[in-house]
Amino acid sequence: MTRAPFAAEGMAAATLIVLSLLLWHSKTERTSHGSTPNIIIMLMDDMGWGDLGVLGQPSKETPNLDAMAAQGMLFTNFYTANPLCSPSRAALLTGRLPVRNGFYTTNAHARNAYTPQEIVGGISKDEILLPQLLKKQGYVSKIVGKWHLGHRPQYLPLEHGFDEWFGSPNCHFGPYNNSVRPNIPVYNNSEMLGRYFEEFQINVKTGESNLTQLYLQEGLDFILRQAEAKQPFFLYWAADATHAHVYASKPFLGKSQRGLYGDAVMELDYSVGQLLSLLQKLGIDKNTFVFFTSDNGAALISAPHQGGSNGPFLCGKETTFEGGMREPAIAWWPGHIKEGTVSLQVANVMDLFTTSLALAGISAPADRILDGLDLTPVLLNSSKELENRPVFYYRGNELMAVRIGQYKAHYWTWINSWDEFKSGVNFCPGEEVPGVTTHDQTEHSLQPLVFHLGRDPGEKYPLSVLSDEYQKVLVGFSTAVQQHKKDLVPGVPQLNMCDLAVMNWAPAGCEKLGKCLKPPESNPWKCDWPH
Amino acid sequence: MTRAPFAAEGMAAATLIVLSLLLWHSKTERTSHGSTPNIIIMLMDDMGWGDLGVLGQPSKETPNLDAMAAQGMLFTNFYTANPLCSPSRAALLTGRLPVRNGFYTTNAHARNAYTPQEIVGGISKDEILLPQLLKKQGYVSKIVGKWHLGHRPQYLPLEHGFDEWFGSPNCHFGPYNNSVRPNIPVYNNSEMLGRYFEEFQINVKTGESNLTQLYLQEGLDFILRQAEAKQPFFLYWAADATHAHVYASKPFLGKSQRGLYGDAVMELDYSVGQLLSLLQKLGIDKNTFVFFTSDNGAALISAPHQGGSNGPFLCGKETTFEGGMREPAIAWWPGHIKEGTVSLQVANVMDLFTTSLALAGISAPADRILDGLDLTPVLLNSSKELENRPVFYYRGNELMAVRIGQYKAHYWTWINSWDEFKSGVNFCPGEEVPGVTTHDQTEHSLQPLVFHLGRDPGEKYPLSVLSDEYQKVLVGFSTAVQQHKKDLVPGVPQLNMCDLAVMNWAPAGCEKLGKCLKPPESNPWKCDWPH
Repeated sequence: MTRAPFAAEGMAAATLIVLSLLLWHSKTERTSHGSTPNIIIMLMDDMGWGDLGVLGQPSKETPNLDAMAAQGMLFTNFYTANPLCSPSRAALLTGRLPVRNGFYTTNAHARNAYTPQEIVGGISKDEILLPQLLKKQGYVSKIVGKWHLGHRPQYLPLEHGFDEWFGSPNCHFGPYNNSVRPNIPVYNNSEMLGRYFEEFQINVKTGESNLTQLYLQEGLDFILRQAEAKQPFFLYWAADATHAHVYASKPFLGKSQRGLYGDAVMELDYSVGQLLSLLQKLGIDKNTFVFFTSDNGAALISAPHQGGSNGPFLCGKETTFEGGMREPAIAWWPGHIKEGTVSLQVANVMDLFTTSLALAGISAPADRILDGLDLTPVLLNSSKELENRPVFYYRGNELMAVRIGQYKAHYWTWINSWDEFKSGVNFCPGEEVPGVTTHDQTEHSLQPLVFHLGRDPGEKYPLSVLSDEYQKVLVGFSTAVQQHKKDLVPGVPQLNMCDLAVMNWAPAGCEKLGKCLKPPESNPWKCDWPH
Repeated sequence: MTRAPFAAEGMAAATLIVLSLLLWHSKTERTSHGSTPNIIIMLMDDMGWGDLGVLGQPSKETPNLDAMAAQGMLFTNFYTANPLCSPSRAALLTGRLPVRNGFYTTNAHARNAYTPQEIVGGISKDEILLPQLLKKQGYVSKIVGKWHLGHRPQYLPLEHGFDEWFGSPNCHFGPYNNSVRPNIPVYNNSEMLGRYFEEFQINVKTGESNLTQLYLQEGLDFILRQAEAKQPFFLYWAADATHAHVYASKPFLGKSQRGLYGDAVMELDYSVGQLLSLLQKLGIDKNTFVFFTSDNGAALISAPHQGGSNGPFLCGKETTFEGGMREPAIAWWPGHIKEGTVSLQVANVMDLFTTSLALAGISAPADRILDGLDLTPVLLNSSKELENRPVFYYRGNELMAVRIGQYKAHYWTWINSWDEFKSGVNFCPGEEVPGVTTHDQTEHSLQPLVFHLGRDPGEKYPLSVLSDEYQKVLVGFSTAVQQHKKDLVPGVPQLNMCDLAVMNWAPAGCEKLGKCLKPPESNPWKCDWPH
């Protein structure tokens, strides 16, 4: 059985009381923030495009997300910035590709890198994060859930613009023996509240955990407080129940047709419904822009028990095929976004940065290249599509592929090494496209593999290099890639160095809880990123 | 350029006039058939589960079908009876598995067989077809489009209960040199009107053809006439634009994000919208049960230009994996079926036979085994699910797999022969599940491959035979299969013999058109079914 930590239980109870009091109050006196709408970004963890009913999950178990799409705008050509969690999250909050904001490695070619406990780096102080900018217009910002932009003190959310945080700096891996590797801490603002598998239980065998309920309560509580204070807010709701270890709370366990993974999705779907419903009850729905998406494709290596679905797309997390980077995406803003619309606009998580600034009436920083577009013309007028700008698919320090319009050109293909693959690490189970899903790093720069994603969203039928169609689109790709590479100033890579001494041995607040652990001597090394 | 044949053009114009006259009349005096609702079954050709927006096709280009689902009931666990056209169509109209109604071959083990021009057999006179039974309650029945239950005179639709027919007995393959092989005829009732690639053009290069428009007009015209006559009717609308050669009429060419195949889907979607809209305009929508589905999975061998999508499912047409037999399925009956419902009921095309009889208040024949269930309890009360009866996946004369609840057991696996596969015939492009997508006919009867279709709809992760889960479900499968085999009386196989003399040389009516061709001498042989 999972036990809720005392502090969290107390918080949840307090939230419910506040909720009862405020609901009556808010109904009678509706808040309005005029031209500065509240912003909520709901970012899922490893949830795939194909996990939503509205996107074709066969058992259709996401009624709240499907309703959100029916009331808002569904984007079917929406991308993350990287097929892995940390870089994609850094891109969302900075509006910049990981290769610019430093969330990549140069230790080896085209390697996926993220922020495990031994990582030395994190989000650079030179990067400007969305909440820092929103503060200029008086927004209060909270992150609920997974941060993943570095866990050392200088990298934590409250050092980078967030006013509040409830959640964790790393993945909920474990449980660990604290003498070798500390269990991951859960923070309340700038101090730890406890650790996963200690105060915050995840039953690895049954999959039971009440964490999504805690994250939901934290989200509801924050919204309530800001609504009461007539305070414009930014809520970054980054629940992680669909990342292995996948978990769900008791009422959801066994409820899905899809097993534990589906149970987790159902609980997240329920939570999304509760959050939207509160906005409506408070009468601030018409003044709150909400966007739902995920950080990367479903982790097929963990499927079917601990991983989701990328629908018709090839491969998943860790890869630059569509399954790795095309994401479920729904925008919701009653009274502003026309209900039941589908946008084919090619868009990505970095657009959420630029769009949020536009919504808040804040100028984007002029001293750096931003990769996001302002989507408000699309959001507010579904008939309009923006310029056909490219999507860049990076893996670590390499531009693997580019999409322009319906065409996608692969300059490099690689799943993972033969050694890894033969040892059972398979990011494309059951899928094998000759010459495409390669286990050698294969360069195609002189003759890129080109797919038409409209006809062939699954990237199974490369265009013949002899076809007129191929020859016709190639020029556009070359121009775009040359321009991109010319303008590119890579950031200082943050994901190169590892050190056991930097792990979460003694997070702030550990003294009060008697939970400080002794770090080993510092002994940094160049991190080994296997794929 | 495609030219409409004169006869067809004349018909379309006449239909429009009738339409204008009747619309006004019908609006003022609404028809009602009390307890015998009209029945429309819309059966697509090679359209895949994943081709509908509501089922996750990324460019979401089926607004009318998506609206049909929003106004009706979407079945996500709906099956055809066979991964190939003729047998699945025979099953729909007889309510019986192909192995019972004779639509299979014993020439070789587990071979797919259908009704090409050289086939000698067809639907047996011992089979009772749906329109024959509906006639007892005064229904008038029409088939529009592809028949595919045999093209020799005794096998044609008007010999088996249909009152009207506009369409073709075979696939629209061609064009042929009439001296070697006749072009396929198009019939109006019992006489040919012309031939494909002659009077009825399909431009193989551009994909242009107005056939879907003809089929639409035929459907509209029939509905109008029956509504006017206050006549209960059965319309079997079997358009075939999504079967290679895929085609669309000029207004739809180039309109899809998906190329020609998507254009064809868009035109079919438009046509469905027009048919439903007419029911509404005539005020008979609340008295007309409509069901939309497809005859088998998308033909991946023809993709992406001439084939569709099976969404997250494995393989396609010709195979007994989910991609071959799970179909898009929508029931629509305003005022009776609760709008916007999703049913997880495991169901199939043979249920449409039994359900139609139930709707018409006709007893099912008691002298034979029927494989369909009456779905009306599910349709009329979305909360109720029927008994967990098995789905039988046959290929020719072999029971390849069985589904019970969420579990599917494969007793045999086979895609096609190594020789065929190496020559480029690939029914699972880009997909390869070791030990599952086999190119040897592989028996697993002693230890079936078992998948949990809820967790793993793509059949990529067989259950471990050592798991408790596997052992627990195995008993149920064994019992079901034993029972099924015990009760099975195979029909006389109709798809064994071929003869060039039986081809469409001189269909009825050819004299009037001067289009009779001279058949060669009869020289029957055992048909060779390669896969």
